[in-house]
Amino acid sequence: MKSSDWKVISAAKEAGIPDPGFEIDKNTAIVITDPQNDFLREDGVAWPIVKESVKENNTIENMSTVFRLAREKGMKIFISPHYFFPTDKEWKFGGALEKFMHSKEMYKRKGRLDMEGFEGSGADFLEEFKQYLEGENIILCNPHKLYSPKNTDLSLQLRKYRIEKVLMAGMSTNLCVESHTRNLLEEGFEVAVIADASGSAKLPGLDTFQGALMNLRMITSHVFTTEEFEEALNSASLK
Amino acid sequence: MKSSDWKVISAAKEAGIPDPGFEIDKNTAIVITDPQNDFLREDGVAWPIVKESVKENNTIENMSTVFRLAREKGMKIFISPHYFFPTDKEWKFGGALEKFMHSKEMYKRKGRLDMEGFEGSGADFLEEFKQYLEGENIILCNPHKLYSPKNTDLSLQLRKYRIEKVLMAGMSTNLCVESHTRNLLEEGFEVAVIADASGSAKLPGLDTFQGALMNLRMITSHVFTTEEFEEALNSASLK
Amino acid sequence: MKSSDWKVISAAKEAGIPDPGFEIDKNTAIVITDPQNDFLREDGVAWPIVKESVKENNTIENMSTVFRLAREKGMKIFISPHYFFPTDKEWKFGGALEKFMHSKEMYKRKGRLDMEGFEGSGADFLEEFKQYLEGENIILCNPHKLYSPKNTDLSLQLRKYRIEKVLMAGMSTNLCVESHTRNLLEEGFEVAVIADASGSAKLPGLDTFQGALMNLRMITSHVFTTEEFEEALNSASLK
Amino acid sequence: MKSSDWKVISAAKEAGIPDPGFEIDKNTAIVITDPQNDFLREDGVAWPIVKESVKENNTIENMSTVFRLAREKGMKIFISPHYFFPTDKEWKFGGALEKFMHSKEMYKRKGRLDMEGFEGSGADFLEEFKQYLEGENIILCNPHKLYSPKNTDLSLQLRKYRIEKVLMAGMSTNLCVESHTRNLLEEGFEVAVIADASGSAKLPGLDTFQGALMNLRMITSHVFTTEEFEEALNSASLK
Repeated sequence: MKSSDWKVISAAKEAGIPDPGFEIDKNTAIVITDPQNDFLREDGVAWPIVKESVKENNTIENMSTVFRLAREKGMKIFISPHYFFPTDKEWKFGGALEKFMHSKEMYKRKGRLDMEGFEGSGADFLEEFKQYLEGENIILCNPHKLYSPKNTDLSLQLRKYRIEKVLMAGMSTNLCVESHTRNLLEEGFEVAVIADASGSAKLPGLDTFQGALMNLRMITSHVFTTEEFEEALNSASLK
Repeated sequence: MKSSDWKVISAAKEAGIPDPGFEIDKNTAIVITDPQNDFLREDGVAWPIVKESVKENNTIENMSTVFRLAREKGMKIFISPHYFFPTDKEWKFGGALEKFMHSKEMYKRKGRLDMEGFEGSGADFLEEFKQYLEGENIILCNPHKLYSPKNTDLSLQLRKYRIEKVLMAGMSTNLCVESHTRNLLEEGFEVAVIADASGSAKLPGLDTFQGALMNLRMITSHVFTTEEFEEALNSASLK
Repeated sequence: MKSSDWKVISAAKEAGIPDPGFEIDKNTAIVITDPQNDFLREDGVAWPIVKESVKENNTIENMSTVFRLAREKGMKIFISPHYFFPTDKEWKFGGALEKFMHSKEMYKRKGRLDMEGFEGSGADFLEEFKQYLEGENIILCNPHKLYSPKNTDLSLQLRKYRIEKVLMAGMSTNLCVESHTRNLLEEGFEVAVIADASGSAKLPGLDTFQGALMNLRMITSHVFTTEEFEEALNSASLK
Repeated sequence: MKSSDWKVISAAKEAGIPDPGFEIDKNTAIVITDPQNDFLREDGVAWPIVKESVKENNTIENMSTVFRLAREKGMKIFISPHYFFPTDKEWKFGGALEKFMHSKEMYKRKGRLDMEGFEGSGADFLEEFKQYLEGENIILCNPHKLYSPKNTDLSLQLRKYRIEKVLMAGMSTNLCVESHTRNLLEEGFEVAVIADASGSAKLPGLDTFQGALMNLRMITSHVFTTEEFEEALNSASLK
């Protein structure tokens, strides 16, 4: 993570914003949004706008580390993917990024009951992550349609496993990671973020990663780096 | 609004992010979050951290203009207030700003069925707005508890009046305005924002207004200034 | 409870419908809907249609027992009340019972910030319950508007106290108790019902209590009588 | 529909319960739950418990009529299916019918991204309906997990097509049809039911169809038969 990004975190501390902390325990799980090719592979539809942040944060390696550590410790990971289906193109209205995603056919799938052409497509998971996605600790949820899990089964799935605390990671920081965070807080989960296992759009005059980091620092219980997460996990009691 | 803030909007345009536009019609309403003393009066608990933004944006005057225009045109305004009750202090966990708000007793009320001490308190509405809040176009909703309307009756109230499109304004931009926006989008409303009828924390190294503006530009259908809103309203067909 | 009502429970057993059971523990709370005069006092608006069931079930005495036991054991009770405000009368549509409630001005209050005329009104709590409602174990939630807690802060309040299991009671069984039950199940709570601490409309050819009992037996983890609840509570470990 | 079932409707009328009515217009759609083999085919897991009601109501023929009429008129049908995935078996708790469904492997699918073995399985759509399910008027939603659309994208999908009014049909009346109805009402939709295009469990001493009919009559705007729906549709203005 660029030191200028991390300055947001120290600025919050200096400004006296509380940092409640987040203790990892047996009722803690990880939620990962959009670990998909359209964000993270060089030919992905959104790669051009997120690549700077993904490289600065070392996002792919950090997400892989999170996947690996969770599997080693038996910690559950809930995947919240993003898919668009042909009927979604007929929606009668949408915000700016919805228009962008639809025009680019981002995360496109042929149908909800049709997997043809999925493998290796922009909607598929990044190849590097697939070794982890078959694990017994992985729960794949219903796809979200805009940015939040409000229209998915994520929170029910978490509760059915008695999960009370969530660590957020994935793509992209100011959209799906932040909307998931905001929604899970309102659903009564305790939430922290692994900031550099995430990344988001950086365009001239628009550093959305830094904007997201401010918000996440203010609303969550703690912002981790992947390194800090590893330390916290290693000293956690998961029994 | 400071020109450096508005640069975010032009940067988004230059980066090719679509600007879908937002047509005001008879099914459009305004939602205002937290028009309360603890944000907007000089002795308010959060005034020290938002005052810079509130002054730069001319927030209070712009909110008054929005209230006045809506009343003149018969457009509904739904108020989503923020109140804390004594039992809320016993919550077992919370994020950073929750800790801040609880420690400052922000928006404190004596009880849900007890109005003693409310008038003129930090939880009460700003005096400047009260002339508008008695209007027939005002619907006061259940209070939110964190930042979003997920735990209130706002979206039901909107639907019961056949509202499909929402203009957001109020305090504070990156917290309640943004969480309301994100939630209303997921509930299937068409959403725009009146950016300078809002304001949020500015602390050294933490310009949350600019961060919010980026997000709002990306997820809503349009970001208005109060002046643009007035023009759009005057040319709108509300029949 | 009439034996013919209880036959529904034994019929479900004979039909082989599982009865998962419900263990009361320290993360268990009670949720009570609409313990209000308009249902339970002889001049209440809905009294004529629920009185038969309330008498058969001994509802008021059983609800008092539930209140008393919870206070003795320090178990939290979350109250989900029903209030209508003047602006609600302008809603543009509504289902059958909404029309009924609005026409009768059931649970009417003068305003969200106006307690004038509340005390002793149809919207107020039944006098018998007031001695319990001041207790430290009572959390009063935002009012629901139709039947479910979807538009209230109930589930957030429960989670903020780390409640995972809920015992439902209150009025009326097939409307608010059942809609609360259905909603809380989808929010990932474990739910049981104290059936005879509840009651509902009985009209010629319309025994809604029996209908509700079938549904509640099928969707919850267990249906208790107040007597069974007392036994279960007395043998529970609440540490 | 058996005349004894329909008596519930006339009893409600005689008891003076309002019948607000439901006008079909261009913003009206149909929602159908669980049109799947496990309910409706003779070897389906739940067939033994619903077959009596399905035969009495002529459910399959009536659902086919609803599908056909909607296609002829270009009215949208939103399908809310029920699927269970292998990870769902590890849920740590559940109510009575959840236990039943899991033990029977009802609606079982191999995985969210794995269609192997789906065709013709208990989770697949009834063969009679497939001719309609390919139509351009059909939107297939995320699967629900218990009974309500709370954990799906149904309400977002409806709103994205500007749907404000919903006609419910499908399986089973007191579980998914009723929980969908209750949830959609709280989301601010105007809801009616086509009662005999639905059916539900009838076991000795447990007539869940009649119980559901009482509740649906009380909370919706109108209860149609398929015949009445056809008449209403034919005289509706859909422009």
